[in-house]
Amino acid sequence: MKLRNYFPILTWSRSYDLRTGIDDLIAAFIVTILLIPQALSYALLAGMPAVTGLYASIAPLLIYALFGSSRVLVVGPAAVVSLMTASAIGDVLQPGTPGYIAAALALAVMSGMILLLMGIFRLGFLANFISHPVVTGFMSASALLIGAGQLPSLLGLSVTGTDFVSLANGVLHAGPPNPVTMMLGVGAMLLMVFMRYGARLIARVLRLSRGAVSLLVKLGPVLAVVVTTLLVSWLGLEVQGVAIVGAVPTGLPSLQPLPVDVAVYRDLAGSAVLIGVIGFVGSISMAQTLAARKRQRIDPNQELIGLGAANIASGFTGGFPISGGFARSVVNYDVGARTPAAGAMTAVGLAIVSFYLTPWLYYLPKATLAATIIVAASSLIEPAAFRQTWRFSKPDFTAMVATAVGTLALGVELGIAVGVALSLLLLLYRTSRPHCAVVGQVPGSEEFKNIARHDVITHPHIITLRMDESLYFTNARFIEDRVSALVAERPQVEHFVLMCTAVNDIDASGLDSLEAINERLRDANVTFHLSAVKGPVMDKLERTDFLRHLTGQVFFSQYEAVQSLTQSAD
Amino acid sequence: MKLRNYFPILTWSRSYDLRTGIDDLIAAFIVTILLIPQALSYALLAGMPAVTGLYASIAPLLIYALFGSSRVLVVGPAAVVSLMTASAIGDVLQPGTPGYIAAALALAVMSGMILLLMGIFRLGFLANFISHPVVTGFMSASALLIGAGQLPSLLGLSVTGTDFVSLANGVLHAGPPNPVTMMLGVGAMLLMVFMRYGARLIARVLRLSRGAVSLLVKLGPVLAVVVTTLLVSWLGLEVQGVAIVGAVPTGLPSLQPLPVDVAVYRDLAGSAVLIGVIGFVGSISMAQTLAARKRQRIDPNQELIGLGAANIASGFTGGFPISGGFARSVVNYDVGARTPAAGAMTAVGLAIVSFYLTPWLYYLPKATLAATIIVAASSLIEPAAFRQTWRFSKPDFTAMVATAVGTLALGVELGIAVGVALSLLLLLYRTSRPHCAVVGQVPGSEEFKNIARHDVITHPHIITLRMDESLYFTNARFIEDRVSALVAERPQVEHFVLMCTAVNDIDASGLDSLEAINERLRDANVTFHLSAVKGPVMDKLERTDFLRHLTGQVFFSQYEAVQSLTQSAD
Repeated sequence: MKLRNYFPILTWSRSYDLRTGIDDLIAAFIVTILLIPQALSYALLAGMPAVTGLYASIAPLLIYALFGSSRVLVVGPAAVVSLMTASAIGDVLQPGTPGYIAAALALAVMSGMILLLMGIFRLGFLANFISHPVVTGFMSASALLIGAGQLPSLLGLSVTGTDFVSLANGVLHAGPPNPVTMMLGVGAMLLMVFMRYGARLIARVLRLSRGAVSLLVKLGPVLAVVVTTLLVSWLGLEVQGVAIVGAVPTGLPSLQPLPVDVAVYRDLAGSAVLIGVIGFVGSISMAQTLAARKRQRIDPNQELIGLGAANIASGFTGGFPISGGFARSVVNYDVGARTPAAGAMTAVGLAIVSFYLTPWLYYLPKATLAATIIVAASSLIEPAAFRQTWRFSKPDFTAMVATAVGTLALGVELGIAVGVALSLLLLLYRTSRPHCAVVGQVPGSEEFKNIARHDVITHPHIITLRMDESLYFTNARFIEDRVSALVAERPQVEHFVLMCTAVNDIDASGLDSLEAINERLRDANVTFHLSAVKGPVMDKLERTDFLRHLTGQVFFSQYEAVQSLTQSAD
Repeated sequence: MKLRNYFPILTWSRSYDLRTGIDDLIAAFIVTILLIPQALSYALLAGMPAVTGLYASIAPLLIYALFGSSRVLVVGPAAVVSLMTASAIGDVLQPGTPGYIAAALALAVMSGMILLLMGIFRLGFLANFISHPVVTGFMSASALLIGAGQLPSLLGLSVTGTDFVSLANGVLHAGPPNPVTMMLGVGAMLLMVFMRYGARLIARVLRLSRGAVSLLVKLGPVLAVVVTTLLVSWLGLEVQGVAIVGAVPTGLPSLQPLPVDVAVYRDLAGSAVLIGVIGFVGSISMAQTLAARKRQRIDPNQELIGLGAANIASGFTGGFPISGGFARSVVNYDVGARTPAAGAMTAVGLAIVSFYLTPWLYYLPKATLAATIIVAASSLIEPAAFRQTWRFSKPDFTAMVATAVGTLALGVELGIAVGVALSLLLLLYRTSRPHCAVVGQVPGSEEFKNIARHDVITHPHIITLRMDESLYFTNARFIEDRVSALVAERPQVEHFVLMCTAVNDIDASGLDSLEAINERLRDANVTFHLSAVKGPVMDKLERTDFLRHLTGQVFFSQYEAVQSLTQSAD
């Protein structure tokens, strides 16, 4: 039972049959074709040779099939994680050099180890501290950086960089663009955009199903790769200065030695944590969304283990940091993948590609890969999310914009750090000013509502304050202050009731505050009562002396409190 | 009106009369006597000449009378703030040197400016992020450090230091103790301990009031100072190697030039923040406790302004960082001080002392001052608080012990930083795993309770989950996961109701999670409903598209939800 928890394959393999196998095989075939341009593009984005994109897919997909808890997630090179990889290593080393490639292996292994350890120690909850607005702000800004970074390749300029300043600087000092490269790149991009928007039109004319349309859209990059590769090859455009992928080593990924220099690991440790966590946050929400459609469950800690093992496998076989990919996972699901075996079959497909078909990639223009990256990245920019968040919550919007601006201005790592720190501070600020309301009785009922919002019955010698938050150290003093203010304003008050319907927990500072309120009210000749205290909170209070010190009573409900206190006054 | 908010003196001075003046004068007289040994001792603890303790009381008391919002708080040199001062400057400079004294002035002014700015920008809430267990752990460890640091003075060894390692190291390399010093110091300590415990006995015999007893206890240090000074003076003990305060310059505090070297301010900036905030946290809770007894109110932001201005005054007149003192404020209150004028009169009293009576302090042995510090510090150690917190809450206990151990092992500044960071992380962890319960209907009522705790009615095609926490990004994924798990376990479910009685707020991540839950349940053919949504939360949801996407309804109450969903199933 325990073993099965760690190896989800032991669960799904028991009911595996021919029908499932055929479904998985069909899905694997389509995903393999889709993955080829993605794997090559994101390798270039990560500053790695194109073929390593294939390596970073094969072993990880096999390993993920063993350990991953999602049945349809397809792992491999992904846009944001590749950008972060380039940013982390590019600060120290020159892309394409042996040192850079070795550092990428080390980064993948380290990042995988961190995820694996987080999974084993069940620390998946740490990912919860990255809020959605921070992720959205970060993704949008990253996509802008990714798109801007691909413009030189698309236009045939030789410029590299992962932040706006170095990119702008590079463009200023670059020569004029190569017209043929530009035509190919822009042409590839227009083809993909046409597939995206034209596919619906074609579908309506040909009466295709929705699934077929979405598949057509997703296969746009494959078509662009095929068309532009054939064009370069037939017209000999490489002699006109069009950068091509060139000779790709043929063969399967093999075990690669990791760097032995400890300094490499030390320098990249911080980046490894960020890359791992960001990759995980993206993957887990994808996996959960897809799993829910079949009422399946994703265990976040098992997902950490699966993704961690996949990254380790990537590093040891010549790859770089990876995560779950959204587009490919959705295709995998849509075309009917039923178990992680589909992922393993995709790995076999990619192995065949990397063994037999790499010569076909010789004439593939880099501008086409840049175009596929730009089109993919553009879908990560979500202006609607900014608009909605602005309407819904100003603090969340602030965190979102700060993360985006931070990422653009300070780079991906500082950007996300700024966002996370700010969102945690804003959360703490919010909990430090909890909502609470003076309440009165709704006439003819046992309910009590805010005296500022409703026409309710109150008694001059009783104040009831309803606290709409747990009593924690961040808000304990706020409540003390609120009670003091209320009593100071109303000299005729004899009873103070704290209504605890929404108090889910009390910490030691909260308890101290209750003690302080009790003492201060006693000194002011006001009796202090609690009402509607929840079971777990009452259990906790009973372990202390507070209930013995309490000058008043603990009432089962607010109604009972007012009944009792008004009768005693008569 | 606005002006009166910033100058509390404009409020209380309007009803000032002779009777109030006499009350204040009596209190001022007693507090002045009490303050003399405290001011001198804490000056030595801060590594400053004894007389600066008087300077650090006079101007600050006058300024606090103008700006402070507490009517009875007595500001001046205090144990923990003096320890922190010695620790901050002692790292860089030798105590007693002109550079050290100048740095102390700078520290007081900087710390005061920070408090003043926090008050003006209404940032008093930041102090709430220091939880009570962290303060208690910090105070207890600081008291141990203070006590240990005074042992050499008490025993006549010449050793200094503000952490255990350097103290132990110093004692090992010091010569044998001075027997006469030791007798005086231990004698003074025994006298104070006797006053503390013997006073009750005497009081019972003489039938004194409780107030008189507490005054007797508080005046123990004064008695010890008088007795030991006379002993040294009559017996000429200073020639036997007893360290005495010696020649104290006579005169009033005067304006002192601040250091001009920017490096001093830069090096001390972090310490200034910590000293200011720790001093404020202690002062504000004291002030609030005393104010509540008379149904008066303390405005935390005004208190920041008062304490900040007092610190600035201290720095400009030759003092060092100060805060509110607990013992002296309680005495001030107990003997009948009615307005801050009592503090101003105390300042006048201390000015008279510093102008006329300093020659009388010549023979005051430093061992007596060490004894008063040890006795005062011992009351800051609260083993009972550790015990109670252990029983009440393990996370709070962890934060408490970590702060105490951190303070002892790493020093006061790192210690408090460790404690604050840990307590915030623990709070975030707690909010990331909110309490939530599947509920059912209590037979014969409209109430719904936890199915695990009560015998309730449930329906196989409906699940109701009650969430006992606001929906924030730290717990949003937890809820998504909980919903997925519940639905995965129960294939016959058609309706999922999220009961929101305790949901006080929803942030953007929480909204995304609701959207995700709604979509996932829709894909699984389960209708998603909300019940008992609070007014402000509903207002927020109405500003979004969520309610249009929602597959189910928003019910006014949980009872209505179940009524409607069971009828529709019939």
